[in-house]
Amino acid sequence: MSLSGTGTYLAPTPSTTRHPWHPPAPSTDPIASGHLLLRNTLTGKKEPFVPHTARHIKWYTCGPTVYDSSHVGHARTYLSFDIMRRIMSDYFHYNVLYQVNTTDIDDKIILRARQNELMRQLEEDASVDFEKLKSMAKEALEEAKAKSEEKRLAIEAAVEEAKANNDSRARTEQEGLLEQHLVKMKNLDKDEANIVEACNVSSGGDARANLLKAAKSVLAEKLDREKGHLITDHAVFNAHARKYEREFMEDMEALGIREPDVLTRVTEYVPKIITFVETIIEKGLAYKSNGSVYLSLDAFEKAGHNYRKLNPAGPGGAATSEAEMAEGEGALASNSGSEKRNPNDFALWKASKAGEPAWESPFGPGRPGWHIECSVVAGDILGETVDIHSGGEDLKFPHHDNELAQSEACFGCNQWVNYFTHTGHLHIEGLKMSKSLKNFITIRQALEHNTARQLRIMFLLQAWDQPMNYSDQTIDDARSKETTFKNFFREVEALVRDDYLAQEVGWRMDEADHKLSDAYLAARQLVHESLLDNFNTKEAMTAMLKVINEANTYLRAPNAKPCILLLRAIATYITQILKVFGVVNGSDDFGYGGDGKGDSGNGAGAEPYIGAMVSFRESVRNAALEAAKGADAKAAINAILQICDGLRDNELPKLGVRLEDRPTGTMWNLEDPEVMLREMEQKAAQEKEIQISKLEKQLIAKEKELEKVKSSMVKPEDLFRTDEFKEWDESGVPITMANGEAVSGGQVKKRKKAVEKQAKMFADLMEKSGNNPQELLDSTQSEVDSIRAKLSELSL
Amino acid sequence: MSLSGTGTYLAPTPSTTRHPWHPPAPSTDPIASGHLLLRNTLTGKKEPFVPHTARHIKWYTCGPTVYDSSHVGHARTYLSFDIMRRIMSDYFHYNVLYQVNTTDIDDKIILRARQNELMRQLEEDASVDFEKLKSMAKEALEEAKAKSEEKRLAIEAAVEEAKANNDSRARTEQEGLLEQHLVKMKNLDKDEANIVEACNVSSGGDARANLLKAAKSVLAEKLDREKGHLITDHAVFNAHARKYEREFMEDMEALGIREPDVLTRVTEYVPKIITFVETIIEKGLAYKSNGSVYLSLDAFEKAGHNYRKLNPAGPGGAATSEAEMAEGEGALASNSGSEKRNPNDFALWKASKAGEPAWESPFGPGRPGWHIECSVVAGDILGETVDIHSGGEDLKFPHHDNELAQSEACFGCNQWVNYFTHTGHLHIEGLKMSKSLKNFITIRQALEHNTARQLRIMFLLQAWDQPMNYSDQTIDDARSKETTFKNFFREVEALVRDDYLAQEVGWRMDEADHKLSDAYLAARQLVHESLLDNFNTKEAMTAMLKVINEANTYLRAPNAKPCILLLRAIATYITQILKVFGVVNGSDDFGYGGDGKGDSGNGAGAEPYIGAMVSFRESVRNAALEAAKGADAKAAINAILQICDGLRDNELPKLGVRLEDRPTGTMWNLEDPEVMLREMEQKAAQEKEIQISKLEKQLIAKEKELEKVKSSMVKPEDLFRTDEFKEWDESGVPITMANGEAVSGGQVKKRKKAVEKQAKMFADLMEKSGNNPQELLDSTQSEVDSIRAKLSELSL
Repeated sequence: MSLSGTGTYLAPTPSTTRHPWHPPAPSTDPIASGHLLLRNTLTGKKEPFVPHTARHIKWYTCGPTVYDSSHVGHARTYLSFDIMRRIMSDYFHYNVLYQVNTTDIDDKIILRARQNELMRQLEEDASVDFEKLKSMAKEALEEAKAKSEEKRLAIEAAVEEAKANNDSRARTEQEGLLEQHLVKMKNLDKDEANIVEACNVSSGGDARANLLKAAKSVLAEKLDREKGHLITDHAVFNAHARKYEREFMEDMEALGIREPDVLTRVTEYVPKIITFVETIIEKGLAYKSNGSVYLSLDAFEKAGHNYRKLNPAGPGGAATSEAEMAEGEGALASNSGSEKRNPNDFALWKASKAGEPAWESPFGPGRPGWHIECSVVAGDILGETVDIHSGGEDLKFPHHDNELAQSEACFGCNQWVNYFTHTGHLHIEGLKMSKSLKNFITIRQALEHNTARQLRIMFLLQAWDQPMNYSDQTIDDARSKETTFKNFFREVEALVRDDYLAQEVGWRMDEADHKLSDAYLAARQLVHESLLDNFNTKEAMTAMLKVINEANTYLRAPNAKPCILLLRAIATYITQILKVFGVVNGSDDFGYGGDGKGDSGNGAGAEPYIGAMVSFRESVRNAALEAAKGADAKAAINAILQICDGLRDNELPKLGVRLEDRPTGTMWNLEDPEVMLREMEQKAAQEKEIQISKLEKQLIAKEKELEKVKSSMVKPEDLFRTDEFKEWDESGVPITMANGEAVSGGQVKKRKKAVEKQAKMFADLMEKSGNNPQELLDSTQSEVDSIRAKLSELSL
Repeated sequence: MSLSGTGTYLAPTPSTTRHPWHPPAPSTDPIASGHLLLRNTLTGKKEPFVPHTARHIKWYTCGPTVYDSSHVGHARTYLSFDIMRRIMSDYFHYNVLYQVNTTDIDDKIILRARQNELMRQLEEDASVDFEKLKSMAKEALEEAKAKSEEKRLAIEAAVEEAKANNDSRARTEQEGLLEQHLVKMKNLDKDEANIVEACNVSSGGDARANLLKAAKSVLAEKLDREKGHLITDHAVFNAHARKYEREFMEDMEALGIREPDVLTRVTEYVPKIITFVETIIEKGLAYKSNGSVYLSLDAFEKAGHNYRKLNPAGPGGAATSEAEMAEGEGALASNSGSEKRNPNDFALWKASKAGEPAWESPFGPGRPGWHIECSVVAGDILGETVDIHSGGEDLKFPHHDNELAQSEACFGCNQWVNYFTHTGHLHIEGLKMSKSLKNFITIRQALEHNTARQLRIMFLLQAWDQPMNYSDQTIDDARSKETTFKNFFREVEALVRDDYLAQEVGWRMDEADHKLSDAYLAARQLVHESLLDNFNTKEAMTAMLKVINEANTYLRAPNAKPCILLLRAIATYITQILKVFGVVNGSDDFGYGGDGKGDSGNGAGAEPYIGAMVSFRESVRNAALEAAKGADAKAAINAILQICDGLRDNELPKLGVRLEDRPTGTMWNLEDPEVMLREMEQKAAQEKEIQISKLEKQLIAKEKELEKVKSSMVKPEDLFRTDEFKEWDESGVPITMANGEAVSGGQVKKRKKAVEKQAKMFADLMEKSGNNPQELLDSTQSEVDSIRAKLSELSL
């Protein structure tokens, strides 16, 4: 069949078969084939992660006990889980439901709230004067020292006993306790030195307040022992918890930690906790005793359950040590061991003593045990199987093992949690950072010296499940890596401004282009595999830094004509991963961002706003400057100009916008807000210094003036009216000495001149003061006082 | 071992065994277990996607032949691949290296560039006047009609022949060609009507230019036939290609399409193309003929290769049809079939005739064939195995099959491309959108009426590999879905401003909270599975819209106390997916974004700037309002106020910020800039209408005034000095008629009154005009003229 005569075409026939296609062979390596490995404390090994249902992850993390400020150790825990959660959700796209619970009923909160309240009462108690306070403080100190010494001896004895028994596990534990206790004793020594110093001042303005501060720790404990039972108002405990809960959430926000999907509080769960405990009692796995309820470990194990999955006791079974029991049951736990059937049993519900908040329950007035809350809130939100349960290393035993026991007892299942993850400890100078050792740096303190981004990069460079050291070196390393990324972004940013279409677009360096392209693909591969391998963010960061290093070499090659699109792809990819890690913001935003057309993005979206604002401000300023030339509306125009300056000097620096009013127009550029705030502080300090030196000069002049007024106020006739003389002439010039001798002629002449001079000064003063020299004196004095007051204010 | 005497503790023993852990069972479903399926044109089926090496994807996409503006059909192809690439790279994190090549050597470019150049020369040729041009146009039209008719008859004959042979495949093809040809004939009829109209005006100002425009299509073809061979300057072809290449890249940017990682151009690859062709000749699979080089399909198949993998010919083998051959070889191909050993052989290198750009080569001066360029540039950048090769449906055969043959011939492999993907056609009113049918809408035209986001949403709601219809309904649907997302984001935005810590944080609606949470997790699961299933973005969009629907129901429940964190999580997740899809910007940004502290992000980063700007403006405005009360600096203050209004009315709307000055202070919110611009236009139109009606009233009044001046200008004594009368009294009252009869008493009385009235009018006019009535007449006339001019300006 032919159309227009050239060539001979065969009629096409319908397709019946296809040529063979050779499917590429998939990899068999577990990570290469996409299996995520996660270190599971339940096995102590990396395990392939498999969710219970579809790709859903029901994830529970123990939040803080809100009794005090959070420290960098907490930052590590919550930042590590934030990073893991972001990778799970934003990178691997698991369907994460992330719950955090705040513990707002707890012995630590009760104690701290009571102590604060009692200290507040003491501070306001006028009947306790400095002397009385001194004896109270000394007494409290002695009591604390005696208790501390008693405890030291007990631990030392336990160490010796362990040595004698060749019990290495007990020995390790007790030696650890001893080390910690010695730190606490040192802290007590410091307290003592401070108390002695505060007592050794003579009573005065701040003496009482200073002593209260120095003795706070020992006094608060003593007061609580004596009067803690008198604090019964729930509001005291609640306000304390709310304050530190808010502080914690603010800290988390400052660290750029994503808010949980679900936040719960123990105080909102008491009725459900009671039901949960009742269920366990009904199943015969818990018992009431003396107003409390305990889980019966014997019954639990007899029912086929396992206890201590996270902290295995070995085949012989191990008891919960006293330290562990104290940690698990709380400082206000009943001391009567006889309440329990087995000393290892732990409380689900605690009878409240006087001075402890209490809720009505079938077991009597009391409050939930520490562990039960997590079982209940997580069970309520996430159900009878939790995919991942997270917490700090500290919580592994007994808290998390007790949680597992309770939940398995209530739900009648054998594995409530599939994967348990625990962050490693944060050490500072070799010791675990902790409240009780007083070696902590609060999150707020850490953020004064480092940005949230630097802290996050620091933790990204660590293995989340290993201990780490918090030191200048680790943070400096993070800072330097932050800069490497930043410099690379800036360099690519400059390159993409080029019009690449006006150049050759193909690969012009061949080998070098191929090498960089290969390095880019390899980095992506390594990042992916590292994240699959138990969230090895350190390796992922290293892979990204390595390709940046390659790119820097490529850019610095002689006669480099870099492929801009490839470099841009690398910068975009690294940014995407840093977004997943939370290092670059944007992944927590929602909405279309810069509304409207496709080309007005979120990112550079701020620039047009700034541009518009600045040109607006410039127009206003120019118009106001014109108006200022007409004197009438001067005040209003001055106000406008001040507003313009205020925007430049006060508002925009906070936003990191530097404005400069130049003769050619207003210029702006972006700057680190911290740098600008530092500059503002420096400028303010300089201005203060100038003001001080100005005021000092004013003071000298005004004091001189005051002296002059004072001396001018003497009437001329009174100038020599002293005991030195006996007789004077009518103008007050002395003529006879007190001894009756005549004043010599030369002396009379000299004195006469002085009287005349005084007469002039007096007359001047009368004129200047409108015949009211006292008023002038007073007003001058008050001017001097006012300058002095300003100076002393500035010197604060 | 006991420390302080309470309870009996057993010494803990070292752990030796752990309790058993039960690993969760992984799913066996292919999609649930994470296999990405991709429809592969090489098999016509969805296949599990497996990259050749690691997770690298070497991806090649045929870019445009840069001879004309791109239309919405191209937008569909490149947007679809952009979306797939984003999902591959940003969602599944494959290591994508995405190459696009622009075809800047091609018969279409040569023809179009030559025709434009010849038309330009004709336009500037003063010797061709209107009359001469008319005869040229008519001649060109007749030639075009004759050719078109000839072609119609040939196709009709081919249809008949196919019917007679019962060859359904040929019949379908020829009937399709006939349908297309009839459209082209209709277009030619339109051309004819336009030419006739343009010829039928008397020669004058625009007549020649209008005729050039109307006859452009037929004239250009005629000129090219006659003089095309005279255009030999490479710069003509190059400038044409560069212009449309830049336009294409700008269109892609306007559509929010990510730039390729590697961009190549054929003109930069000629030496490598020559080497590539030489290799194939050396392998005995291509032959030189008459200055061109052809691939020998017989030798190719004999060497064990397969031809037509994408468009299988069936067991009997099928020839390339004439239409396919014309498409594949180009409009300037040699017509001498005798150059080829087998009529199905296709050109690797084309000898250039006069008027065609040529490069020196061992085969003689010529240029690369269309297909060879893709083999060479992709082979150079991506290597001897390409993971994915993409292009529009049109290119499947012969272009892509020829590419495969060449590359397999050169590299000696049996599968150069593992996955071939082709987008479906875009239809408009039932016909494929195409240049040759003149039924296209350019990308720029489409973007005048729709935003890039709306177009992208429209394509997301289609299956990328199926044909689709471009209609009002499809775009309205996209708009409505855009609004659904937007309203949800706004509602959540308002909610997250609440201080949730001050409220109960736990789940307070229990069942409803669980239901929404389940819907959220289910939506995430469905999105993931849909994307794995051959990029089913339609299903993914539907899943997200469904959970928004659930959330809306949840929010509207009676006494709803919504869980803000959960809603926020949903909004954040949807935004993340829309970012992956390119609907929300941000995933193409790189760098830390807002410099400085971790908390000043890219995304919401604009808000503080806006806040600062608005409160600044409010302060300025208040101060200026105060100043306005003092009249002196009034002008300056008015200027300030105008600047304030200008910011509100002119600047901020462009940025999508709506400002409202209310008595309680200035409010702002974000709005689609297009909506605001529309509002501005409406407001301007209203103001214009008001102005027009005001001016029309003014005109009526002024015209009346003008009439009055004109009539008042008649002196009272001249009022009746007409041919009607013969004699008048001294005041000008007529007393004798023209025929000599006396004017009746009644008439005299009446006329006298008129003269008296005129005397008053005249006196008033003299007074009003300061004895210069002509000047008043002129100034009134000029006022009338000025109002008329304003009105006619406004009516434009």
